Amino acid sequence: MILDALWYILPAYLANSSPVIFGGGAPIDFGRNFVDGRRIFGDGKTWRGFFGGLTAGTLIGIIQYFLRPYYYGSLKLAIKLSFLLALGALVGDLIGSFIKRRLNMPRGYPAVGLDQWGFLITALIFAYPVKTIPTGQVLFLLAITPVIHWAANVFAYKMGWKDVPW
Amino acid sequence: MILDALWYILPAYLANSSPVIFGGGAPIDFGRNFVDGRRIFGDGKTWRGFFGGLTAGTLIGIIQYFLRPYYYGSLKLAIKLSFLLALGALVGDLIGSFIKRRLNMPRGYPAVGLDQWGFLITALIFAYPVKTIPTGQVLFLLAITPVIHWAANVFAYKMGWKDVPW
Repeated sequence: MILDALWYILPAYLANSSPVIFGGGAPIDFGRNFVDGRRIFGDGKTWRGFFGGLTAGTLIGIIQYFLRPYYYGSLKLAIKLSFLLALGALVGDLIGSFIKRRLNMPRGYPAVGLDQWGFLITALIFAYPVKTIPTGQVLFLLAITPVIHWAANVFAYKMGWKDVPW
Repeated sequence: MILDALWYILPAYLANSSPVIFGGGAPIDFGRNFVDGRRIFGDGKTWRGFFGGLTAGTLIGIIQYFLRPYYYGSLKLAIKLSFLLALGALVGDLIGSFIKRRLNMPRGYPAVGLDQWGFLITALIFAYPVKTIPTGQVLFLLAITPVIHWAANVFAYKMGWKDVPW
């Protein structure tokens, strides 16, 4: 079922969106610059956001296991998978910020494509060795994620959680 | 074999890069504007580039068939597949230009992520009903295409085929 793809990727989505809730605190790069004199990741990437996203993503995987145990087969696999999906999403987001800083884009400035697909692709790659989904489901996620990403950001903006609608 | 993925996607890569060679002539939108008062696609997307890319992509598929017939099984499938990969890449490129114009980005302005993944994702989706590749190969292409795209553009710039290195 193609909707299984959304069930599979949920920990990555949650990890990617959670910095809106868990954000703040010390930045991951501790304010340091890269060799080009610009910030490594910027103030938008914090330790609290990173570990908050990792925890939230893994927790949702555990909840998903108890709702539909047959999808994962074992709790151990559910934890491993959701941890890797969340970690992949967060690392992808960091790579995205690193690239944006190198291109001298200010914090929060949108990079169309990178913002919507970057975290998804790294999450799928990180989780691949543990459990993957068929090609059709991957293509479905690649097609639908920009729409979901856009809708979620507009929603967060309307709710006052974000300063900009992207 | 993971390198089969590059063999599979070659018609899409060729279609995506051929406007550098076949470009010029009447723009696909005939200079018309969208409802927002901005160009539909812009001067960068021309009929010659589109049909040149479609022809080049399908032709490379035919050549690939004669080099490695067992990969496709039949010439008919090779033509169908390479046509759809090329068409998907070109449609994805048009969607990318359409989005860029809506965001008021000037022609040729880079959209990090969209430029590297957009055409690839639409090519994979268009070709999916005819012949697809395993998830591992899709993830490999998603990981490697930005690097190839960047290297190809730097090369085209150094050769004087492009005005900007992206």
